[in-house]
Amino acid sequence: MQAPAAKNAAGVCPYFHEAVELLGKRWTGAIVHALLGGRMRFSAISHAIPQISDRLLSIRLKELEACGIVAREVYEAAPVRVEYELTPKGRALEPAVTSLRAWACEWLRD
Amino acid sequence: MQAPAAKNAAGVCPYFHEAVELLGKRWTGAIVHALLGGRMRFSAISHAIPQISDRLLSIRLKELEACGIVAREVYEAAPVRVEYELTPKGRALEPAVTSLRAWACEWLRD
Repeated sequence: MQAPAAKNAAGVCPYFHEAVELLGKRWTGAIVHALLGGRMRFSAISHAIPQISDRLLSIRLKELEACGIVAREVYEAAPVRVEYELTPKGRALEPAVTSLRAWACEWLRD
Repeated sequence: MQAPAAKNAAGVCPYFHEAVELLGKRWTGAIVHALLGGRMRFSAISHAIPQISDRLLSIRLKELEACGIVAREVYEAAPVRVEYELTPKGRALEPAVTSLRAWACEWLRD
């Protein structure tokens, strides 16, 4: 029988798993990473991640809006300007993104 | 034209993207999370992540071995004992896992 401490160390935290599943969706991490630099128009995100299609970028942004990580701001100008930015929940991802990026730069370079 | 600093802030770091793709594969994050508690037998990992099938767990462990994050140790006993543990590259993921878990516990609880 496992001691409670060992069981806690080994068991999967369901929130952690949910976070990995959420951010691990193709290009989602890259979008959050890009938006950590500040609010951006759709075209600027698309430019920052040239491999993603506009259709998929649109889907991912809607998903991130739905879970409260990204906010979409519409500015009533002519033409209408739409920008995306991280919410407080999204900006709170910065330490995790920074840590993972540091790991990646250290261990995934050839 | 964007200034170099703005371009760097917005551009996707290819290593970061690779790391997200790697750890974002279904259950991979959970496996690394479980192994941060120390070396484990296959059955113990399976017990810690009851939702994963043994077949998929076996595939994910082979993938993690192939990219140098997990080491498989065979102990010549009767019966043979096989254990899995994180390599230095795998253990170096701890700060990123800890940060993401802290974010998840703060923002994904209802």
